[in-house]
Formats: sequence, C-alpha cells, structure tokens
Amino acid sequence: MAQNRRDFLKTSGLLAGAALAGIPNSIYSKPNINFTKVGKMKLTFKPYDLTLKHAFTIATSTRTTTPVMLTEIEYEGVVGYGEASMPPYLGESQASAAEFLGKVNLEQFPDPFDMENILDYVDKIAEKNPAAKASVDIALHDLVGKLMNQPWFKIWGYDKYRSPYTSFTIGIDTPEVVRQKVREADIYKILKVKLGRDNDKQMIETIREITDKPICVDANQGWTDRVKALDMAYWLKEKGITFIEQAMPKENIDGNAWLTENSPLPTFGDESVQRLPDVIKAHKVYSGINIKLMKSTGMREAHKMLTLARGLGMKVMLGCMTETSCAISAASHLSPMVDFADLDGAVLISNDCFIGTTIEDGKISLTDRPGIGAIKK
Amino acid sequence: MAQNRRDFLKTSGLLAGAALAGIPNSIYSKPNINFTKVGKMKLTFKPYDLTLKHAFTIATSTRTTTPVMLTEIEYEGVVGYGEASMPPYLGESQASAAEFLGKVNLEQFPDPFDMENILDYVDKIAEKNPAAKASVDIALHDLVGKLMNQPWFKIWGYDKYRSPYTSFTIGIDTPEVVRQKVREADIYKILKVKLGRDNDKQMIETIREITDKPICVDANQGWTDRVKALDMAYWLKEKGITFIEQAMPKENIDGNAWLTENSPLPTFGDESVQRLPDVIKAHKVYSGINIKLMKSTGMREAHKMLTLARGLGMKVMLGCMTETSCAISAASHLSPMVDFADLDGAVLISNDCFIGTTIEDGKISLTDRPGIGAIKK
Repeated sequence: MAQNRRDFLKTSGLLAGAALAGIPNSIYSKPNINFTKVGKMKLTFKPYDLTLKHAFTIATSTRTTTPVMLTEIEYEGVVGYGEASMPPYLGESQASAAEFLGKVNLEQFPDPFDMENILDYVDKIAEKNPAAKASVDIALHDLVGKLMNQPWFKIWGYDKYRSPYTSFTIGIDTPEVVRQKVREADIYKILKVKLGRDNDKQMIETIREITDKPICVDANQGWTDRVKALDMAYWLKEKGITFIEQAMPKENIDGNAWLTENSPLPTFGDESVQRLPDVIKAHKVYSGINIKLMKSTGMREAHKMLTLARGLGMKVMLGCMTETSCAISAASHLSPMVDFADLDGAVLISNDCFIGTTIEDGKISLTDRPGIGAIKK
Repeated sequence: MAQNRRDFLKTSGLLAGAALAGIPNSIYSKPNINFTKVGKMKLTFKPYDLTLKHAFTIATSTRTTTPVMLTEIEYEGVVGYGEASMPPYLGESQASAAEFLGKVNLEQFPDPFDMENILDYVDKIAEKNPAAKASVDIALHDLVGKLMNQPWFKIWGYDKYRSPYTSFTIGIDTPEVVRQKVREADIYKILKVKLGRDNDKQMIETIREITDKPICVDANQGWTDRVKALDMAYWLKEKGITFIEQAMPKENIDGNAWLTENSPLPTFGDESVQRLPDVIKAHKVYSGINIKLMKSTGMREAHKMLTLARGLGMKVMLGCMTETSCAISAASHLSPMVDFADLDGAVLISNDCFIGTTIEDGKISLTDRPGIGAIKK
C-alpha cells in the first residue's frame, strides 16, 4: 500500500527534522477535530450461495456453486450494497468473511465520504481477506454514490458508452460440451477459453470449427515450460487468438518476462497481480494486468491500480469471479477505461438476486442509477 | 499520456485480430449514441495581472508581477472558476493562453461529467500550454463539483483535516531582506528557501540566526557539480534542513540519481516532473516529485500523478506558482494526500480576487463549499 503522509514523515526523518529544529511533532499530525456527527454507518451481512448454470472447470479445479457474502451499509436511511465472492480455491469462505466483517466498526466514522481513511482502517483490521474487504468497499461506494446522487462512472469522469464488449468464458470440457457452450455464447463478440491442461489445442480447434470470433485464452498458470509456452503462443496467434492470460506459474517471474518479451501475443498477469504493489512487480513481466475487485479489495484500490498501470504504459483488463450483478455492476464502472473486459460472472449463475449493469448484445451496458447502480430483485 | 483503449486495440493487434476473425472493427469503437442534450458548456476567459508583495528572485530570474488568465465555464446557470498562472520564464503568456482557449469548444460535449473525454480533447488541441489547459481543467472541476454539490476532497474520498502545514517561500535576497521576510513568515511552521546562486550558505546561516524552524531548500537546478551538491546536502542536514528540491539541472539524470542515492536528505524533482509520463522517469532519480497544477494541466492529471507516485513508493509534494486563491484552492484538494505542501502562492500577492482555501496558523484549511471552494471577492 502507498505510504500515508504520516508514515512518510516518520520514515523520511521529517518528524525527526522537526524535533531537531525544536518544533513539536504534533504540527505534522492530524489535529483532534470535533466532527459534526450527523449519522452513523451500520454494516450488516448475510451469506448467499450462487448456483452455477454449468459445472465450471479451470486448470486447477471444478465446481457447481460459489459461496458469497452480501453486505449492506446503512446511513441516514440510505443503503449501499456490496458483495464478496469467494471461490474456494482462493482461500476465503463465508466463515472467514463473517469473522472479518464482525470486526469492522464503521460507526466510529462520522462521514462516509472519508473513504481513504475508512478503507485504510478496514484494510488494516487483518491481512488477506480481499473479497471480504471488497464487500465493504463496494457497499461504501454504493452508499457514497447514492449520497452524491451520481453513478461512479460519472464521479470518476468516465463515458459509459466507451465500455467494451465483454468476453464469455468457456471452461475446460469435452468437445461436445465446449461446442454447446460456444453456441450458447451467440451474443458474445469475444470468447475467453480456459487452457492449461493437456487438451489445449483440441479446445481451440473445437471452437474454431464452429466460430471465427476473436478468442483470448487463460492458461491459469497451467504452462510450465517457457519454450513450449512460446511455441503455443505462436500456434495461438495463427488461430487468431488476441492475447494470453497468466501463461505460467506466477512464481516464475523470469519465465513470464521472457515469454512476454518474445511472444507474438500480448500477455496478461492475473494470479500474479492481486493488489496495488503487484502492478509495479508486473511491469515488464506481462504486457498488462487483470484487475478484479475480489483481488484488489474493491473499487478504490482497483481504480488506483488502473491509474498506475496506465501510467506505466501497461494494458488493463477487468475480470470477475462468479458474482451477482451487485459486484459485477461495481466493477463495470471502471470498464470504460480498460482495454478488455471479462465481466460475465452474473450470467454464469441461475440465482442472481440483483439487477444492475447488463450485457446488451455482448456489450457492457451501465445504468445511470446512482452508486454502483444495482438494485435488489 | 496513457494509451486509451482504442489506441491499445490498434497497437496490440486486437483490431487486426478482430478483422482477421471476420468481426467488424466497429464492435470495439464508441457507438453513435444520441445523448440527451440538457445544456451546453460555455467557456469564457479574461487576463488579470497579479501584483507581488515583494520582488521575487529565484536562481534564474526576478519579477514583480505574474500574468494570469481567469476562466469560467457556465452550464445551466452554474459557473465553474479556473485560472492559468504564467510566470514568464515558463514560456506561456496571456497571448498564448488566449490563443489556446479560443480554440476550446466545449459546446460539443453535452455532459460536463464526461471529464476524461473532455480533458483528453483539450489536451490534444495543441502541444504544451499546460497552464492554459489547467485553467479549463480547474473550471470544469469546479463546475462538476458544484453539480454534485460536493467539494473535490470529498469526491476523491480525502479527509480535509489531514492537509499539511504549508511552507512559506523565502526568495534569494540580501541578508537584511531575508531576515525581514523570515520575520513576516511568523505564522508559518516550515520555510522553503530558494538556493542555487553563490550565497547558499549565507542564506541558510542568515535564517538560522533568527529561527530554528524546519527548512526545506529549492536549488531550482542551480547546482551543477554532483560532488559539491552532495557536500552541500551533508552541510544542509547539519543545519536541520528537511529535503532538497531540484538540486541539479533536470537534464542531468545520472547526477540527480547519484545524489538521491547518496544524499542524507530526500530529494524532490520539480522542473524534471511536469506531467504523468515524467513520474516514471523520476522514479529512482528523485525520492519524490513536486506536483503543480500549472505543470500537470490541472487537477485530473495531478490526481493521477499522485496515485502513480504513491504506487511507485515515491514521496509527493504539492507546489504552486504565484496564483489567486482560485488555483490555490483547486490544488488544496489534493493536499490531504501529500507529504509536503508549498501552497503560499496567494499570500504572496496583494490583489487576490478570490476567497477560498486559506492558511490558518500555517496550516492549509479547506472549506466545505462545493467544487474547488473558491468564490469571487
């Protein structure tokens, strides 16, 4: 995380300098201000289980449900909605989220607009727990956007009509199931294909038999040999693939950097890039990064990651877990500024309990409703 | 500047990939949407000359006035205020600003909230002209903040009570005048001393005779020998100086990087760091950067520079030119997130035509008024 001013003053010796010069340290610190207390924020949460339309297989696992935690922050009669989506292989659960959220005391903050301080406090409650933290961040953004009566794409100054087409994800499966999924993905202009097992070429060839749509691939760290990965990149380029996501294990920094340098296709880091400090580490290792709210601890840090990656000249894609239209809507406010989006999480489930950002003829379509723009069904 | 999505698609071959796969390029581009036109933005501007209370000397020049251009953007009866401050040595003038602003047509944008597109358009009208561009950016921020009925520190999620103390700048002068200026700076908790001529040690010793306040120094590229610069850094540390700004010429990247690596005091780049791409270039050359709205083209890019520098682990200070309380107020909304601020520009002039952010007992004090919080006197 970025240093705050006081941390900087401590570590840089400015406070020491002040002491040296006979000036009390307190001139640099936050004074005790009596805030006008107009209300208190109250956080509530409840577990919810998403039912997947199809069993979903990636390089490392298969599942049919995704546990989530739905959050609400109420302030002066206004309610903000949030969500934590926790695919089990990522280490969080409804139990861990409940434990984390039980420690979050928002009543101490008189002003919901004080987002930097509030989310800094939430982040420091415990390590990890990125999805649980995101569920607070999203609900807070929804609340504050509603208090401003503006959607976040407007607050951030973005043009919602610039949002990209989303890809639709095809999991690893038998040729028959893959063909069926591709046919079901009729409205989508771009497909994202999960690779990384032993049938990579078969997957691509099966899909190419029935469609010439742009395809991007996600190996989910499934390739381990850099030379084979590069051979695969050349083969994929011939098949009209647009980019490769997380080709090799995230620990293999040299291998991923070598592949990026030599690959005819752009590469994106996903598992490698969780939070803000990871963006710098991904510079020159990947062509771009995949930002997901459930990794980044929510919208605020995701927005910073986007700005940082752009400043470094990196490409940016926006991804998701299987999520309701609550978390998908939250992420969609960043979409006008990304090169590529994979926000199909809500259409992969059969029990979405929110209405929000939708996918219209394959394109991400944001509403003008304030906050994140999600309302309960 | 960061690539936009379409530029990325062009250069990355995604458009080519789409064409290859038989998908029309238009799926990636912005569709022709019929916006609901509710109003038109109208930009007006007029020159104004700031009168300096004292003739001001830095390493490279002396002056008694500063030409500015005051701007207004009116939309549906709401008016946003902006300002370009143009010290002559930086290359802009009231004539160049008038020429630039005469080309800005905001009437084509139906929604003031569409800030990324609007300011991207303004930036591409002509190269350079950073202060003229800032005068549009600031007026637009003021307008949009007023439309949201919120001050920008709240929109950005910052806590105004974290704003730092500002330094007060002491120009290069005779010991007698320097002593007088230091006495006049009684309310300020930190002094910023201009160095870089042949009387550096005399300047510091003169000030240290009458005050033990923290001092930072700005050499304005005035030091040319890296070894002498390092000797000076050690001498300055003994005198209780907190950091050194722009020690050597900005072209001397190796020299500045060497000084930063070896200096006992943090270093800041100022002339070296104008806009967003310069932040990356300053990484590992300086400990931190000095952000000024009149260099960065305004608040939006300054905010991105702040985020980028923080992400890179760099320190950040916020500076200004001699400006009215209009541009000073605009900059002050970033101040809760910086390590150090030098926002004394409005107190150095005798004909400030705005009331906005003030300096209370040396501390930057933001108001809760919407937008940038500046009102006309």
